Amino acid sequence: MKRNFYSDNVSGAAPEILRAIVESNADDTAPYGGDPYTQRLERRMAELFETELDVYPVGTGTVANGLCASILAVPYGGIYCADISHLHTSECGGAEFWSGGNARSVPVPTVDGRIPAATLIEAIEAGALRAADVPGRAISLTQGTEAGTVYSLREIRELAAAAHARNLLVHMDGARFANAVARLDCTPAELTWQAGVDLLSFGATKNGALCAEAIVFFNRGLAETMRYRRRRAGHLYSKMRFLSAQLLAFLEDDLWLRNARHANAMAARVRQGLAEIPGVRFPHPTEINFVLAALPKPVWDGLVADGYSFSRRGAPREGVIRIACAWDTPVEAVDSLIEAAHRHAGLVGAGAVAGRRA
Amino acid sequence: MKRNFYSDNVSGAAPEILRAIVESNADDTAPYGGDPYTQRLERRMAELFETELDVYPVGTGTVANGLCASILAVPYGGIYCADISHLHTSECGGAEFWSGGNARSVPVPTVDGRIPAATLIEAIEAGALRAADVPGRAISLTQGTEAGTVYSLREIRELAAAAHARNLLVHMDGARFANAVARLDCTPAELTWQAGVDLLSFGATKNGALCAEAIVFFNRGLAETMRYRRRRAGHLYSKMRFLSAQLLAFLEDDLWLRNARHANAMAARVRQGLAEIPGVRFPHPTEINFVLAALPKPVWDGLVADGYSFSRRGAPREGVIRIACAWDTPVEAVDSLIEAAHRHAGLVGAGAVAGRRA
Amino acid sequence: MKRNFYSDNVSGAAPEILRAIVESNADDTAPYGGDPYTQRLERRMAELFETELDVYPVGTGTVANGLCASILAVPYGGIYCADISHLHTSECGGAEFWSGGNARSVPVPTVDGRIPAATLIEAIEAGALRAADVPGRAISLTQGTEAGTVYSLREIRELAAAAHARNLLVHMDGARFANAVARLDCTPAELTWQAGVDLLSFGATKNGALCAEAIVFFNRGLAETMRYRRRRAGHLYSKMRFLSAQLLAFLEDDLWLRNARHANAMAARVRQGLAEIPGVRFPHPTEINFVLAALPKPVWDGLVADGYSFSRRGAPREGVIRIACAWDTPVEAVDSLIEAAHRHAGLVGAGAVAGRRA
Amino acid sequence: MKRNFYSDNVSGAAPEILRAIVESNADDTAPYGGDPYTQRLERRMAELFETELDVYPVGTGTVANGLCASILAVPYGGIYCADISHLHTSECGGAEFWSGGNARSVPVPTVDGRIPAATLIEAIEAGALRAADVPGRAISLTQGTEAGTVYSLREIRELAAAAHARNLLVHMDGARFANAVARLDCTPAELTWQAGVDLLSFGATKNGALCAEAIVFFNRGLAETMRYRRRRAGHLYSKMRFLSAQLLAFLEDDLWLRNARHANAMAARVRQGLAEIPGVRFPHPTEINFVLAALPKPVWDGLVADGYSFSRRGAPREGVIRIACAWDTPVEAVDSLIEAAHRHAGLVGAGAVAGRRA
Repeated sequence: MKRNFYSDNVSGAAPEILRAIVESNADDTAPYGGDPYTQRLERRMAELFETELDVYPVGTGTVANGLCASILAVPYGGIYCADISHLHTSECGGAEFWSGGNARSVPVPTVDGRIPAATLIEAIEAGALRAADVPGRAISLTQGTEAGTVYSLREIRELAAAAHARNLLVHMDGARFANAVARLDCTPAELTWQAGVDLLSFGATKNGALCAEAIVFFNRGLAETMRYRRRRAGHLYSKMRFLSAQLLAFLEDDLWLRNARHANAMAARVRQGLAEIPGVRFPHPTEINFVLAALPKPVWDGLVADGYSFSRRGAPREGVIRIACAWDTPVEAVDSLIEAAHRHAGLVGAGAVAGRRA
Repeated sequence: MKRNFYSDNVSGAAPEILRAIVESNADDTAPYGGDPYTQRLERRMAELFETELDVYPVGTGTVANGLCASILAVPYGGIYCADISHLHTSECGGAEFWSGGNARSVPVPTVDGRIPAATLIEAIEAGALRAADVPGRAISLTQGTEAGTVYSLREIRELAAAAHARNLLVHMDGARFANAVARLDCTPAELTWQAGVDLLSFGATKNGALCAEAIVFFNRGLAETMRYRRRRAGHLYSKMRFLSAQLLAFLEDDLWLRNARHANAMAARVRQGLAEIPGVRFPHPTEINFVLAALPKPVWDGLVADGYSFSRRGAPREGVIRIACAWDTPVEAVDSLIEAAHRHAGLVGAGAVAGRRA
Repeated sequence: MKRNFYSDNVSGAAPEILRAIVESNADDTAPYGGDPYTQRLERRMAELFETELDVYPVGTGTVANGLCASILAVPYGGIYCADISHLHTSECGGAEFWSGGNARSVPVPTVDGRIPAATLIEAIEAGALRAADVPGRAISLTQGTEAGTVYSLREIRELAAAAHARNLLVHMDGARFANAVARLDCTPAELTWQAGVDLLSFGATKNGALCAEAIVFFNRGLAETMRYRRRRAGHLYSKMRFLSAQLLAFLEDDLWLRNARHANAMAARVRQGLAEIPGVRFPHPTEINFVLAALPKPVWDGLVADGYSFSRRGAPREGVIRIACAWDTPVEAVDSLIEAAHRHAGLVGAGAVAGRRA
Repeated sequence: MKRNFYSDNVSGAAPEILRAIVESNADDTAPYGGDPYTQRLERRMAELFETELDVYPVGTGTVANGLCASILAVPYGGIYCADISHLHTSECGGAEFWSGGNARSVPVPTVDGRIPAATLIEAIEAGALRAADVPGRAISLTQGTEAGTVYSLREIRELAAAAHARNLLVHMDGARFANAVARLDCTPAELTWQAGVDLLSFGATKNGALCAEAIVFFNRGLAETMRYRRRRAGHLYSKMRFLSAQLLAFLEDDLWLRNARHANAMAARVRQGLAEIPGVRFPHPTEINFVLAALPKPVWDGLVADGYSFSRRGAPREGVIRIACAWDTPVEAVDSLIEAAHRHAGLVGAGAVAGRRA
């Protein structure tokens, strides 16, 4: 029974994805993206987003964000982003690197992982006052956020409008885009270009792909240099079809939304179960596929002794862990986790779980 | 019947590789390279090369070369390489980019794709005279070369000694390393660290993998910063096992050498068949898995009309094409190609091919 | 009478400096630093700092800091610095640029412009927890600070020890180094290498030079690549003697300390005069050559109407201005400023100033 | 008597320039280019070039070229330049560095230091064929060349037209622009924007300034990001007037052309005198202020023994030296050099020199 809740990346790829990779390897095709899978993907993404766009499959979310930063920062400038965003804290200075030192990620304080529009405006205007500083060029919004929350459509629209009014572009880091769409029950178009998003890092790996992400340009003028940049980045795979075939399978029959809905539901179930334990603290709402929680020490110690694995978040003294669910997290694994936590908390517990199961 | 000889990358992955990917996806594992496949790969590569080393799997040869360049050029400097090397002509300025403008690829003239040691020494010494120029830091040798040839062990040793004597490091771009080992019938150790190679871009994709290369450090002091660099580069895949599993399968039961020997043999067969046609010109020997050839116009036109596909090489007026064979090129496809070429050349031909078949 | 207190850079160069430039131009000399002035400077700086060191004259403080950052961040990493430091807020992303995207300036909160050691340690340790972030490489201390204060010798020692204990190098941005030495009445050696500083941006321009700064390496191993970096940066001036001659004149007969002491005294006099005005607020102590102050509106309006010029600091709503004194600010100009401020504040004022004059 | 012909940079600054520096330091002015000298310079340059333009004074030619490269290469690309150009051989990889790895200088073979238009077109078209290489973005023409020659107006026009027709921008490296204008006896406008030049590195240091160059944008759209770039580069001097005042004095009363004509004439005199010596070889015509020559061994040895100093050019075995004349090279010094050379060559010589003097 699964005890590894460390990351949504501990799961393998979904069987539909693996099958698509194997099938796409049957014949010779043109290398470097000249294959029919990649061409089909372009049409499929345009349908999905209900607009003309440019799509560049790449291998990781880090490179997707990095290449976007390199385009946003020409000639050079700051990219306002959440203080806890992956771009700022977990990409080894990628914005700076990919842009040859042109970009700098500028952290903005968040509430529940989200940047309030007023805070963004204040940061932009303070930056604009300093003539000798890095001028702002863009904002980057992580949807869903690193706090396990989502921006509403209204919030995205407001932030994008504030940015555009100040001549800044809008990037969305959609490493968990599917989880956000599933949560908001909106269309991909509503959440992106219709709300003012210029370009999107569209994630698939965390949600059932083997290794596949895509950079999606709604503002197509920005795409002009991408083909060079991606090649130089070593993300123009010679056997590119293996990326495109993954993304096609990901979108086929709404696999991406089915996977995301399942993962979100499992996180909600984790939260509901933990909430019954006195002393458990949740720093943020749980709106996507993972729960941030501070557990009482006996619960934490007991779960570790049972062999459970989680990642830590924030300052050590706060004791917050992330419990990540994925496309393939079994209901039974969640229920076992909750039972174990209840047991370590000294709750009778079994009845409650039985109730949930009914 | 296969008519696509455009590149060794038009082939899909070998079945052993696909099977390994699927199998490695059965369970949860630690992400970002903490998985057992990656750990096993490290031991396997050490055995293969008969020495302690550091291995970093990455997704493409371009990023392997680029990351190597970024390390070689600290604090900054020139990397001497073949004028026709991939590093210099086909990576969109990757050496310059990955090093943040620190590296510059410095082309050196070649004979049959190989840099003569005397030419290298002359280039290094001319460079050393110019105090204000980019100081030399390294040489990069492509083995097998872009001309379809290989350096002998003696040549590698001589070039490496010349470089080391002048305080330059030695990188080997081994995108077709397997083809060179197969051709030379030597050990991987003999061709690399025993000959003076400090670090190696070890290729697998062109020879049957889906997307898998590895950076191999024999000079382990150079590896110190690689884990950061690879992560920043977006080549620390979250589901890293899919890369490591490919490389393990690649080495299992000498799959890599069997694939390379077959591809080399097919190229030799193409050359032998074409050599019978009057007017065919070969600019270089054929020592690995592709043939460079200039065909008489009727032969070229006929093959194109038949639906054959090749890539061009060099200046258009020279009319040189590359006929690339791969791990899965069928003997029958080669024989059909030769028969067609003979037919377009007006040769009776059938007998000759029959003879080869016997 | 001087009414421009906008910056210590509104002043011209000191007559001793101009004389030295003119005299150094009398004859032919070797270009690019091969001249006798540059050689003499190296010996002079070694005497001044009482140790062997390497000196690289450059034209501006921005390039001094940028080149230092490019060295500190090899292979790459974060440079902890004050949140209000020039490096972080006023060099257009120079740390990132000069290092080719390798460095990132990481702001640390300050008290009176100084980083408390406990805050530094907390920032370093929080950073060290995030494996995927930019690893810390160095700290940069601005001495005197942008708040008009100085670190004590004990504070510098403590911060440097905290950094070294965590394997971080120590840079000092000494754009106003002379003002700090004058204030602390210590030796240059005590304030730098004896306290643990590895390399120093030694400023002269703000304190009477025309355009001359120097990068001083106490940790001489770090200097290895500087000659290339400086040339590439366009700061290896062909007629380099004009820089070295300025720096020699700057040190001759303690001109640098005399200038700094005067500027510091003038700032103290400004503060003393303003402090007599009810409602004037000083956010920080005044320890070097400028005063940060928030003035009552009638005083501010009156001074602007009189033609006085200052620069603003911090958020607009705080109304803080910087009143900068320089090597050549006349006592009379300070007294006129104070008299005017007193007049606009409705104070009788003349007596107080007369008292100060006595 | 002057025996240092190593470089045009061994000379000090002209007295007019020094006087202007001293005078510009008399009063307080706004720092960072807000001063009246800089404003006056903008108008003066517009008059000189007979067009609206943008001017950015900087401290060295290396940074002028580097900043131009960083603009030319956005998003990224190759800059075709002479194989012997300063940009390619003497700026420590500056094009690559300043552009954050975006630019690569691509050397083109020259005849007498000049790129023939047909050679340029061939290089561009060969580059355009390689989809994975660095795409061409610009050409950079050195005027006067490193071979001591000048491009004619017709040649510049032809090269610029070839570049523009292929969507490449045109940069002119005018480190010795004055010498070229003096030689061609044309207007600055004819030699630049009227011939198709988009931006110019306008040199002054080699021709009598202390340290002053200017980047001149005729294609003003390219200037948009320069103010940030120059500041980041550490070439926005706080006491910027000292640069602008130099450039104003340089242009005043045609000082720049008078200096250049003198230096050119001295080089012509050197050449005429050396040409009388049997065995002296000149690899190129002498059209500006220096002579490239290979001297018979006794002449070379004799001059060295006399204390003369020159720089070497090209491969050591060719024995070519550069004899550089400057704005202040005395006729007598040239004649002494010639007399000495004649003496070491065993010529009677005195008569010839007397003849030249008359």
